[in-house]
Amino acid sequence: MHSNSTATYMSREAIQLQQSADDHGPAFGNAAPEKGKIAPPKSGGLDGHALFSVINHPHDVTSLAIPELEAVASEVRRMIISTVSANGGHLAPSLGVVDLTLALLNIFNPEKDRLVWDVGHQAYAYKILTGRRESFHTLRTMGGISGFPRMAESPFDHFGVGHSSTSISAALGMAIARDLAGQDHSVAAIIGDGSMTAGLAYEGLNQAGDLGVGMTVVLNDNEMSISRNVGALSSFLSRKLSKRWVQRFKQQMETWMRQVPRFGDDLANYARLSESSLKSFFTPGMIFEAFKFNYIGPINGHNMQDMVNIFRQVKELDGPVLVHVLTTKGKGYVPAEKNPTYFHGVGCFVPETGESKKISGCLPPYTDVFGRTLVDLAEQNPKIVAITAAMPEGTGLNFFADTFPDRFFDVGICEQHAVTMAAGLASQGFHPVVAVYSTFLQRSYDQVVHDVCLQNLPVTICLDRAGLVGEDGATHHGAFDISYLRHIPNLLFMAPKDEGELQQMLATALNHNGPSAIRYPRGVGIGAKYQDTLHPLPLGQGELLRAGEDALIIALGSRVYPSLEAAEETVLETGKSVAVFNARFIKPLPAEQLLELASRYERIIIVEENVVAGGFGSAVLELLAAENMFNGQRIKLMGIPDAFVEHGPQRLLRKQLGLDKLGIKKALSELFA
Amino acid sequence: MHSNSTATYMSREAIQLQQSADDHGPAFGNAAPEKGKIAPPKSGGLDGHALFSVINHPHDVTSLAIPELEAVASEVRRMIISTVSANGGHLAPSLGVVDLTLALLNIFNPEKDRLVWDVGHQAYAYKILTGRRESFHTLRTMGGISGFPRMAESPFDHFGVGHSSTSISAALGMAIARDLAGQDHSVAAIIGDGSMTAGLAYEGLNQAGDLGVGMTVVLNDNEMSISRNVGALSSFLSRKLSKRWVQRFKQQMETWMRQVPRFGDDLANYARLSESSLKSFFTPGMIFEAFKFNYIGPINGHNMQDMVNIFRQVKELDGPVLVHVLTTKGKGYVPAEKNPTYFHGVGCFVPETGESKKISGCLPPYTDVFGRTLVDLAEQNPKIVAITAAMPEGTGLNFFADTFPDRFFDVGICEQHAVTMAAGLASQGFHPVVAVYSTFLQRSYDQVVHDVCLQNLPVTICLDRAGLVGEDGATHHGAFDISYLRHIPNLLFMAPKDEGELQQMLATALNHNGPSAIRYPRGVGIGAKYQDTLHPLPLGQGELLRAGEDALIIALGSRVYPSLEAAEETVLETGKSVAVFNARFIKPLPAEQLLELASRYERIIIVEENVVAGGFGSAVLELLAAENMFNGQRIKLMGIPDAFVEHGPQRLLRKQLGLDKLGIKKALSELFA
Repeated sequence: MHSNSTATYMSREAIQLQQSADDHGPAFGNAAPEKGKIAPPKSGGLDGHALFSVINHPHDVTSLAIPELEAVASEVRRMIISTVSANGGHLAPSLGVVDLTLALLNIFNPEKDRLVWDVGHQAYAYKILTGRRESFHTLRTMGGISGFPRMAESPFDHFGVGHSSTSISAALGMAIARDLAGQDHSVAAIIGDGSMTAGLAYEGLNQAGDLGVGMTVVLNDNEMSISRNVGALSSFLSRKLSKRWVQRFKQQMETWMRQVPRFGDDLANYARLSESSLKSFFTPGMIFEAFKFNYIGPINGHNMQDMVNIFRQVKELDGPVLVHVLTTKGKGYVPAEKNPTYFHGVGCFVPETGESKKISGCLPPYTDVFGRTLVDLAEQNPKIVAITAAMPEGTGLNFFADTFPDRFFDVGICEQHAVTMAAGLASQGFHPVVAVYSTFLQRSYDQVVHDVCLQNLPVTICLDRAGLVGEDGATHHGAFDISYLRHIPNLLFMAPKDEGELQQMLATALNHNGPSAIRYPRGVGIGAKYQDTLHPLPLGQGELLRAGEDALIIALGSRVYPSLEAAEETVLETGKSVAVFNARFIKPLPAEQLLELASRYERIIIVEENVVAGGFGSAVLELLAAENMFNGQRIKLMGIPDAFVEHGPQRLLRKQLGLDKLGIKKALSELFA
Repeated sequence: MHSNSTATYMSREAIQLQQSADDHGPAFGNAAPEKGKIAPPKSGGLDGHALFSVINHPHDVTSLAIPELEAVASEVRRMIISTVSANGGHLAPSLGVVDLTLALLNIFNPEKDRLVWDVGHQAYAYKILTGRRESFHTLRTMGGISGFPRMAESPFDHFGVGHSSTSISAALGMAIARDLAGQDHSVAAIIGDGSMTAGLAYEGLNQAGDLGVGMTVVLNDNEMSISRNVGALSSFLSRKLSKRWVQRFKQQMETWMRQVPRFGDDLANYARLSESSLKSFFTPGMIFEAFKFNYIGPINGHNMQDMVNIFRQVKELDGPVLVHVLTTKGKGYVPAEKNPTYFHGVGCFVPETGESKKISGCLPPYTDVFGRTLVDLAEQNPKIVAITAAMPEGTGLNFFADTFPDRFFDVGICEQHAVTMAAGLASQGFHPVVAVYSTFLQRSYDQVVHDVCLQNLPVTICLDRAGLVGEDGATHHGAFDISYLRHIPNLLFMAPKDEGELQQMLATALNHNGPSAIRYPRGVGIGAKYQDTLHPLPLGQGELLRAGEDALIIALGSRVYPSLEAAEETVLETGKSVAVFNARFIKPLPAEQLLELASRYERIIIVEENVVAGGFGSAVLELLAAENMFNGQRIKLMGIPDAFVEHGPQRLLRKQLGLDKLGIKKALSELFA
């Protein structure tokens, strides 16, 4: 197997040279001077468009010859660029694996074989080529196809994904299932080098190698995850071996050679070997072979012929195989190749130039306000350090990283490690801020309980994208964080009504000598003025924003302003006056205020952007029960219902779930009915 | 550094031979024919007891010479055996590292240096030697010292632990903190080879190597975790390299040698090298060196002189260092060496013989009932497979493993992977049962949400040790599972009142084509008769166990029988009659029954063995709010309060928290007051 293709042993540099030479046209490669122009591809006389337009089922790819696959690849890229420029989405990852996807579908049959895309944001080509060409323009729109593989969307989506690094474990489960059922199809996981840094991937790899089950892991190595890749493994993949390792190897080689008489004579010669020749001896495969995988690669992920040759043979191999494929993120679209981090997940843009369609002068998102405020606070307090998990831009910590590079740590896609390392830092007198998305903190629930809160350590967790995130959909909504965090003892937990309150809460958390968390939504707030001077809020105190006689709304975080608007319109339209209380604190609850208010109102709405089950509203009910304050009030809990919410614009999702101003007004009118 | 000690490069076999020769006396080593007899150690004329009796502070260990350290080690072992035989605890892990602990304390100064014990169940010697000799007899007793390191217990416990694999991340945080603060003490993590299989350890290792921070990882390799170790890494550590790897190495060697002229001549010779000589060339160090750690070892973890030499030098090294130490689990106590799995965590035993003090004829624990029932059900349904995370005995899945070895999977200490792999199996038509402790499922919260429930896959999660676990204390109580699971859409979630109901619920879960979970307590139930024929329960229906007019108790799981007893005694003592409803279902709630009951009673108690916050009681309150059923009832939620609960006997903890019969009676009398 190992000598079947010259490509198998090409160096990364050689492959990159070949990739440049392989480029199909001026607008689609590194050579193109024009920024992002999409010209019809040069496809050797083949009508790529005609070929592409009849691919309605994956078996249509099986019969294509190499030049045809290449021609179709260009069409797929054009469709991805066109759709994502209009709908937003994960452009660079998907462009990087168009060729790989075609090669896989040429050899593997997804009607029988199982393909698991890790994370899944790179699966656009797969969607297009497996029956979703016609519907691809609906990508990420409400009611349209999802930005990620989903079992419910297509029989060819063999496993739903969204969070990173699940593919090897899932594929191993599928391969075991196949063997138990006495079947003989192939199972493959396609995973990026960034996803490989997560512990879950390692756990899966470790067991797959041990069991020796027949499965293929395609390592899609583009030398980056969402942002610059981190970790020793990535250096290893790039052959940036440590000097120590090389020295160690030399020493052991010497010992070994002394034991082998004939070799011993050549010891002097051996000692003259240069470090570079030694380094070239080690392929990245060594580490995977150590995990008992059969390693093949690296191969050029944009050379269709090589990939097809390799996959054809891999399909016949027994046991676990890792195919190391080198790809270029954003491949074929110059702006994305040049700036793959920006084009990783992108909003609408002008396809011809790659320029953002973002309207200038729009409000800064919560993310930016958080990032700037943390820099301000860290200037006054040298004990503040910041940690993120492969999301410096996404969390706004890039501001901090630029200002305090020595106090900033990007741990890669390792949410568990991020939190436990923060606990280690906090145990030594530092105050770490861990900034991640709400949905990804789910990975470190145990670390928040066991390492941070049990030890009552001053770690502040900032949950960006809490609540409904919009187009990324069911796998990415921050729908659960109140429910999975508020029951943990010792935690201070807040949610701001606007950007200004986020600033104050950050100051409050960093002034608190214990664990704390702040949740805030994706997107922009109300445009609150940026505050240069901040004072900690009094713990466990909310604010009555509006007086009223007939009903009370207890609102949390992003739902405070819609509640105010609903109250205002209700009094104008019905004459019923409604009080609005901004709770601010999920934990400790503003108990005194809530009890006083609850005693005065017969009609109460509690509204939050989290599932109702175990959420903020249920915390208020627990308080009322503990204080024997149920006196016959009508209490309505509003929040996300007990179901996974699909993708769509945040505004429409909130409307659909009745969590916007209109929904709250409707709830009020029902209370008054 | 690499050639400082001959021990550095000893093979495992050679070290094992040396370990046998090093044994101190007939009762304390493999050579002893008498089973577990504790004779006074032969200590070369030194009075070990006298030396030991004045060790009140770690600096008392610094000044000891090697023979003195060895003499003290024997005394420490005697104290550990004596105390654990009376109190129960983690015997074999702690005995294995007595020598290692003394060597570490001889070199590292815990007043300044930081030592992080992974899991911490091996830290008994450390506790004894760092000021807790006098209090060690209180180990794991109520108000006594904890079975795990705790920052609150001693200034020498630098990080609290309990769950596996946190030490490298925490130590990295500490090392970064040291460097940021401009200090120069040492930081070391001591981690077992079993803990190294968890993804969190890999995440920490990967980043520590990348950052190049000065820290030491002591790999305590006893070739097993709690049970037999699993995974490719453990094979690698044992040098059980795959044939493929060796072939691969040979091939690459050939290619490489062709490029080096003088070597090329010897190719023929090279080809004759045996596989075994090639294998011996690779030390386990290669994989850690790949992670940019300086690897030292393996060294004999029972040779004090070697360890002291090595640690003295390691302390002066820059950058990350991994010291690979080979130890024998249970070292120095024959019964534990012979059966380290049984003596991993053990109840009371006769120290002279190692025999269990368990009273014969006592009831089978829930664990065994679960294990046997699963075998029964799996005999009828070939689609049932079982997965555990390094806990076949602890979860009762050993019955299943014995009966259906091909359908059983122990994934190692990898709870995340266990759940995602289960989802992969379920996606292919199997019905996996994942059995873990409630506290450890905290590690796979995200996988339960994202891989199982979002995809609505038929995976059954069995949470053993739900509620208060007793002596293992704060890190191990299953206090949160209702709160972290009940808000996840699609999940069927149950808790049995006794062993018979556990059997029925298992049948119910395996009959349900979607995700399900069952929580049940540590220990024995009421001695319900084992049922050979099982019928699924009607979903979302509880049972009224006792009628009554004056108050209602809605009880869940382990709290059902104490509620019945409280109700019975209350009617006898006060004449007030109390109804008791066994809810059975956390999700879906028995809504119709609950609503009907809530409308009839003015005094309601809801009792569960989970934190009140977000627990079962709050689910009932949410239901009552949704149905506008608050009509002025007095509703009292009983459960674990909002604080971490310490260690102690389950019975005493329940009493302390008011969750036993007396506590429920008291709550009733308060309702009636």
